[in-house]
Amino acid sequence: MKKIRKFLLPEAEMPTRWYNIMADMPNKPKPPLHPATKEPIKPEDLAPLFPMGLIEQEVSTQKFIDIPGEVLDLYRTYRPSPVFRAWGLEKALGTSCKIYYKYEGVSYAGSHKANTAIAQAYYNKVEGVKKMSTETGAGQWGSALSFACKQFGIDLEVYMVKVSFNQKPYRKLMMNTYGANAIASPSNLTDAGRKILAANPDSPGSLGIAISEAVERAAKDPEVKYSLGSVLNHVLLHQTIIGEEALLQMEMAGDYPDIVVGCFGGGSNFAGISFPFVRENILKGKKTRAIAIEPASCPKLTRGKFMYDYGDSVGLTPLLAMYTLGHNFVPAKIHAGGLRYHGAGVIVSQLLKDGLIEAQSKYQKDCFNNGVMFARSEGIIPAPEATYAITGAVDEARRCDEAGTPQTILFNLSGHGHLDLGSYEKYFSDDLEDHELSNEEIEKSIAMIS
Amino acid sequence: MKKIRKFLLPEAEMPTRWYNIMADMPNKPKPPLHPATKEPIKPEDLAPLFPMGLIEQEVSTQKFIDIPGEVLDLYRTYRPSPVFRAWGLEKALGTSCKIYYKYEGVSYAGSHKANTAIAQAYYNKVEGVKKMSTETGAGQWGSALSFACKQFGIDLEVYMVKVSFNQKPYRKLMMNTYGANAIASPSNLTDAGRKILAANPDSPGSLGIAISEAVERAAKDPEVKYSLGSVLNHVLLHQTIIGEEALLQMEMAGDYPDIVVGCFGGGSNFAGISFPFVRENILKGKKTRAIAIEPASCPKLTRGKFMYDYGDSVGLTPLLAMYTLGHNFVPAKIHAGGLRYHGAGVIVSQLLKDGLIEAQSKYQKDCFNNGVMFARSEGIIPAPEATYAITGAVDEARRCDEAGTPQTILFNLSGHGHLDLGSYEKYFSDDLEDHELSNEEIEKSIAMIS
Repeated sequence: MKKIRKFLLPEAEMPTRWYNIMADMPNKPKPPLHPATKEPIKPEDLAPLFPMGLIEQEVSTQKFIDIPGEVLDLYRTYRPSPVFRAWGLEKALGTSCKIYYKYEGVSYAGSHKANTAIAQAYYNKVEGVKKMSTETGAGQWGSALSFACKQFGIDLEVYMVKVSFNQKPYRKLMMNTYGANAIASPSNLTDAGRKILAANPDSPGSLGIAISEAVERAAKDPEVKYSLGSVLNHVLLHQTIIGEEALLQMEMAGDYPDIVVGCFGGGSNFAGISFPFVRENILKGKKTRAIAIEPASCPKLTRGKFMYDYGDSVGLTPLLAMYTLGHNFVPAKIHAGGLRYHGAGVIVSQLLKDGLIEAQSKYQKDCFNNGVMFARSEGIIPAPEATYAITGAVDEARRCDEAGTPQTILFNLSGHGHLDLGSYEKYFSDDLEDHELSNEEIEKSIAMIS
Repeated sequence: MKKIRKFLLPEAEMPTRWYNIMADMPNKPKPPLHPATKEPIKPEDLAPLFPMGLIEQEVSTQKFIDIPGEVLDLYRTYRPSPVFRAWGLEKALGTSCKIYYKYEGVSYAGSHKANTAIAQAYYNKVEGVKKMSTETGAGQWGSALSFACKQFGIDLEVYMVKVSFNQKPYRKLMMNTYGANAIASPSNLTDAGRKILAANPDSPGSLGIAISEAVERAAKDPEVKYSLGSVLNHVLLHQTIIGEEALLQMEMAGDYPDIVVGCFGGGSNFAGISFPFVRENILKGKKTRAIAIEPASCPKLTRGKFMYDYGDSVGLTPLLAMYTLGHNFVPAKIHAGGLRYHGAGVIVSQLLKDGLIEAQSKYQKDCFNNGVMFARSEGIIPAPEATYAITGAVDEARRCDEAGTPQTILFNLSGHGHLDLGSYEKYFSDDLEDHELSNEEIEKSIAMIS
């Protein structure tokens, strides 16, 4: 029998609804609090930043939300994405487990970020928005939103952390190619940027600063709306198309995962692959373990504290009830820039607290080891972030093999690493560091906000 | 009705045979001549460089050649590749034509080169080869062969033109990630390289020099075989899987192309998309126009001469009966490095001479214009080479619209431009030149070999 490598859904079978796990959670997340009043935030508090369509999704408890036709149409530029059986990786590992991966790197900008970028741009367009702002670190999110905004006639300003802006010119060029305006942050275009530059003209920038600039643009100009690529409930919602497709594709493969794995930064790709499977656990008694993989250098899920904290490092956002290392926590400069975030978002945090999902942390050198093994056996060069998901799957397979109980593992390969090959150079020249994070460091960071 | 964007073949329906157009050509190509004796070359003359399996394919007139199971298995890491209906591009153009494109950028290394890389590595493995050498310019071919060799336990040395080696570190890193040894050429590892370096220690290298080094490695060491990524008959053969799939996918779409377009360097991706359609013309009376698009700065098909010439710039290869600008011709440094080749290969040349295919030339600025329009409307950022195919399709669509006779156009999008974004920077900063090639320049270059 031929070994089928890819399970492809025809476009006609692409799911047409997002899944909202809020409907099925035994304990709902605690409400976000207004940063000034500390009262539960009201939809209208968010209106200067987001269109009402997205604010409604942020607080919705409706179980399924129809994906608008124009969003589905643009999803079809790359969706349904394939599920691969990892024959090459299984052979390289010599495992008795069956390993599958969902590959989101097929999207135009190369990662799952497109799934929410298209949806967010659409809901802004519906409300007549002509200009949007956002921030980006390594550039995955900014490039995904650039193309999406172009499709709906929206001008986009992307505040890109200056050090990345200079080190990753290809991401900036991708945004330009899609017609967006990429701006090195801190910039002279905002009060926040000007203030930083006055104090330090050579500031390399940070994600916190870039967020402040992008939010300020929207807060001060009623013509401009703001967009965020992870953490928020509506972002996680849009990503659930990943897991909804995967459910159908695992059925095509005649299999069902014992374990589902995703890497974890703000939670969006992990939520995307895992929430539909968690639903099957809750409602149908399935026993799939959903495992979030975070960097050992930024371990909010495994070593953080569940408490109210700000979503940004400056303290402008609502307070969120979540696992956090403290919003002042500065993660080591690992190459998986998309995983360098201090908090976890309210839904994922509540699910973890309730034991409905699990979390593990991994070191970056191990992850690059496994990333290179993956590239050499499967062909796809993974984004640094995705090597954490690979490592989660690989380690679980090895554990199963040692125990003599082979299982079926599905992980989300959230993006390719074509524009991250510089980080592979560091790996090959043995120029990667693994930072051992002490309990004292974590306690100190959390104490600052307690 | 929903607009279907992608026509996907399931793996089970992937064609299992390559098509050899030699069987159906009304006039066969003239035989290659030995460079020393000027007599038709014999298979054993090629044996030091290539395994017999490939030499047999080079001279075969068998109509269909079964694709070995191990090759099919690795094709399945990315094949069948999708055919897209270019709804976004059609809208951007406002055309009444229907435009489809076959997308080969889904392969592990990002282009159609994988189709022959896997096949060549396989036939070498069958004959016990443990080490191979090749050259690469911009790096597409070298990276495709790197992964393929890894799958069959073959060590690979890639001689990469030094200026590209330094300017395109990501391509080198991709080869390293796949486990190959990328060497800046000229190198100290060969006589050819040492000779160049002695005369000019700062030589930037050239494709001609890199070929000389890679060929020398194989010619002088019986343990090493050589591999070429275009021009040769067996390479074109392996690429026909593109067109065989496209035939089936156009049928899925309920359509048939009036025009098929591919960009043209050595001929492999153009042959891949077009030969199966040319067969339908020859045998079934179909009337599809097959159009090869070459750079105006390297116009061998539209302004070259049909004659015997060397395949390389040094004069080591057999003499080939083909359209050529002369093997000493040095094309302008356009960004589509894969199209900078003086000749055309014997099959394509004979087909053009016999009026079974057509050729057009395009300028690079127009091509980047169309490449950016394509990226903004379809999402995929095309490789510089592929922008020539886009431009061929766009110009034909405009011609049809002006004539009021809309047609169906299929082009081959041979690769993505993720590792070529530097060339887009030149475009955005208006730093691209179009070189107007005079008749005198061409005549002079051809006269050198007449």
